[in-house]
Amino acid sequence: MTETYQSALIVGAGSGLSASVARAFAQAGMKIALAARTFDKLGPLAKETNAQTYACDASKRDQVDKLFAALDAAGAPDVVVYNASYRTRGPFLELDPVEVEKAIIVSAFAGFLVAQAAVKRMLPQGRGAMLFTGASASIKGYAQSAPFAMGKFALRGLAQSMARELAPQGIHVAHFVIDGGIRSARRPVPADKPDSLLDPDAIAQTYLHVLQQPRSAWTHEVELRPWVEKF
Amino acid sequence: MTETYQSALIVGAGSGLSASVARAFAQAGMKIALAARTFDKLGPLAKETNAQTYACDASKRDQVDKLFAALDAAGAPDVVVYNASYRTRGPFLELDPVEVEKAIIVSAFAGFLVAQAAVKRMLPQGRGAMLFTGASASIKGYAQSAPFAMGKFALRGLAQSMARELAPQGIHVAHFVIDGGIRSARRPVPADKPDSLLDPDAIAQTYLHVLQQPRSAWTHEVELRPWVEKF
Amino acid sequence: MTETYQSALIVGAGSGLSASVARAFAQAGMKIALAARTFDKLGPLAKETNAQTYACDASKRDQVDKLFAALDAAGAPDVVVYNASYRTRGPFLELDPVEVEKAIIVSAFAGFLVAQAAVKRMLPQGRGAMLFTGASASIKGYAQSAPFAMGKFALRGLAQSMARELAPQGIHVAHFVIDGGIRSARRPVPADKPDSLLDPDAIAQTYLHVLQQPRSAWTHEVELRPWVEKF
Amino acid sequence: MTETYQSALIVGAGSGLSASVARAFAQAGMKIALAARTFDKLGPLAKETNAQTYACDASKRDQVDKLFAALDAAGAPDVVVYNASYRTRGPFLELDPVEVEKAIIVSAFAGFLVAQAAVKRMLPQGRGAMLFTGASASIKGYAQSAPFAMGKFALRGLAQSMARELAPQGIHVAHFVIDGGIRSARRPVPADKPDSLLDPDAIAQTYLHVLQQPRSAWTHEVELRPWVEKF
Repeated sequence: MTETYQSALIVGAGSGLSASVARAFAQAGMKIALAARTFDKLGPLAKETNAQTYACDASKRDQVDKLFAALDAAGAPDVVVYNASYRTRGPFLELDPVEVEKAIIVSAFAGFLVAQAAVKRMLPQGRGAMLFTGASASIKGYAQSAPFAMGKFALRGLAQSMARELAPQGIHVAHFVIDGGIRSARRPVPADKPDSLLDPDAIAQTYLHVLQQPRSAWTHEVELRPWVEKF
Repeated sequence: MTETYQSALIVGAGSGLSASVARAFAQAGMKIALAARTFDKLGPLAKETNAQTYACDASKRDQVDKLFAALDAAGAPDVVVYNASYRTRGPFLELDPVEVEKAIIVSAFAGFLVAQAAVKRMLPQGRGAMLFTGASASIKGYAQSAPFAMGKFALRGLAQSMARELAPQGIHVAHFVIDGGIRSARRPVPADKPDSLLDPDAIAQTYLHVLQQPRSAWTHEVELRPWVEKF
Repeated sequence: MTETYQSALIVGAGSGLSASVARAFAQAGMKIALAARTFDKLGPLAKETNAQTYACDASKRDQVDKLFAALDAAGAPDVVVYNASYRTRGPFLELDPVEVEKAIIVSAFAGFLVAQAAVKRMLPQGRGAMLFTGASASIKGYAQSAPFAMGKFALRGLAQSMARELAPQGIHVAHFVIDGGIRSARRPVPADKPDSLLDPDAIAQTYLHVLQQPRSAWTHEVELRPWVEKF
Repeated sequence: MTETYQSALIVGAGSGLSASVARAFAQAGMKIALAARTFDKLGPLAKETNAQTYACDASKRDQVDKLFAALDAAGAPDVVVYNASYRTRGPFLELDPVEVEKAIIVSAFAGFLVAQAAVKRMLPQGRGAMLFTGASASIKGYAQSAPFAMGKFALRGLAQSMARELAPQGIHVAHFVIDGGIRSARRPVPADKPDSLLDPDAIAQTYLHVLQQPRSAWTHEVELRPWVEKF
């Protein structure tokens, strides 16, 4: 009854969250593929998770096509995680339009390109999972942060439209609202505020859980935040 | 890092979802207590999950107090699931105000009574989990169904207020938006529409997952629906 | 094309917002009826708006029935504003269940009683308007304020259910999310923060505007807040 | 106390809604400027509303800059309505990425460009209004309609971020959720379903009302739909 997926592609693989997701999925038995704009830093993770790595600027259609063509050879992934985003922030009048456009394109349009290529492989099988990483900015537009809100709102709109169309065709589309900072080597948890940043391994466990849900009880949206986070 | 809870109280234990939750929690090693207005039908489930059963009309404060006093003897539960509700529906002008009030009281006010008694035991420990079962009516008021919407909206308001206040004190408050019908003996899944009703065992697995989340990455709200459900 | 209503009943008439609504509606040519639990303070407003006053505890069905029976003599109102609410707040464990129940009953259940009596008169005419006053607590459950959230969430659920059922029958159901404090004699606007509290007369103008909307473009929900209010 | 604006720029002026807004604003005494990609069809409206017309592809930064530079000569508008959008729809796999990108850019990024140029003129005055036209797709991603959802969700994120930052600086930012079809010469109201399409003149009255709100009681978001529209 539980879904069992075989292989996962993680796009935007350079982040700490992606690393945790890769580890959790690998440990659950999935074959892992990692894609990022530059993959020179993916080496250790690739080794640890026995993953293939791919260079891909997901905002370029031809690069996305090439990525999936390369994956096809070994069997297309039945799970794809879209985890890339770009943000710029500051007073509204100081926002650079070039950066704003990039925030929208990378955070949302590239997600569409990846999703369309992924679903093209999944639909003939009548199964597959497409996971999108959102943020608090997905549901609330913050001051001095319009570009990220635009990108993340758009990504949520994409996820909802896909779910309404594709869930009845067997594709599990899920959107994760990550509400809070994620801890990392550069951003350690303050000693006096234990667990006040999201542990990426913990987030990854919820991604994995959603993957394991049988289709009679699918989650489309789930929010995650540290216990002390204001919301 | 993963939370490990010891004992769970399930209020509104007569439903199929409650039975599945009881089984899943028992299998995960928790001691189970079952409460319902009438517990004569709880026998088989109690036996199966090695649970204590309690008669309790959760809309009556004295009965809730008595229930928790009885539980205190053996150690108060560190997990409480509020799973009771009452609904009446029909054309707006035909709704019986007595039934409408009952829908609000049972679906929401009783949830408050149970939650307050539960949290009273949890706060001194600095940990515990309070889970509320919502419905699509929690976020959308449907025609001819104002009473259920009123009850379920109110329960969601309770859950949010509790989470904002109590999460930073160690209490994990979660609200589940169950969007779709739940399959049961009386409501079997149509043969031509596989998995079109929620499997209560599948829902229970997500309840269990939320319980297992470490406090650095807690879910407050999660929705669950069958793959073919319109939303 | 614009709706023209003849007479308005305002329930919970003792508040500053109700007074402003009464004045705005009277000025627009409507006959006004004012209802409150105690109407001894309604004298000046009644005189100013040439209104009839009625004592009514809207949480009691018989009193609501009596109120509308009294109104029927002179012609039932084609606009009803439900503006009553009750709140209690404090740390979750210190909330008095009696007060919590009262918050839910007054803020939501009484709204149902009034709405049902009102709609009973409107439906045969195929027209009418039912306005509900909400708050930021209608859409966000704040810490230490579960009772108000429960009441206001429930009222919003009622308004939505009514709109979905009754709008196609000609009843305009609107819900106003008042997000911020309302200025009053006891709560004046700080001199150094101009317009930082909602002017009730300004709110009333939006209520009036919604009433004037033709049925081809009805608003169901509208939010109002001071320019400097955080949200 | 009521805001009085002097001049309004309407971007995306070719639509029926824009025409109605132009007429309503002109009738309220505002000077009107109309901008559209091609303005050859704007003649009659320009004449009727005594408006200046401008050709501008709002998705091009230089064209937006040029538009506002032209407007500066006669005095920058204190009201700007962003009313342009682009959509494409169809089965997810058949969506043309070029069209998808265009939908996002025109519906949202161009809105940013216009808003930034507009706010640059408004902020030094400490007042102004920026109105965005949304749709049901702004809050719900429909099947086979991901591109429009992406664009409209993004526009809503922009509007929220702007409101949170700029409202306390005197800029009224409002987002209108237009939920339903708008009647037009090409899309007349069915005789057997009176008022089942939004009358653009009625929508425009609500835009005008929002403009007239004093800053103590501003609306940020308002939804509008025909009485018989499902939601």
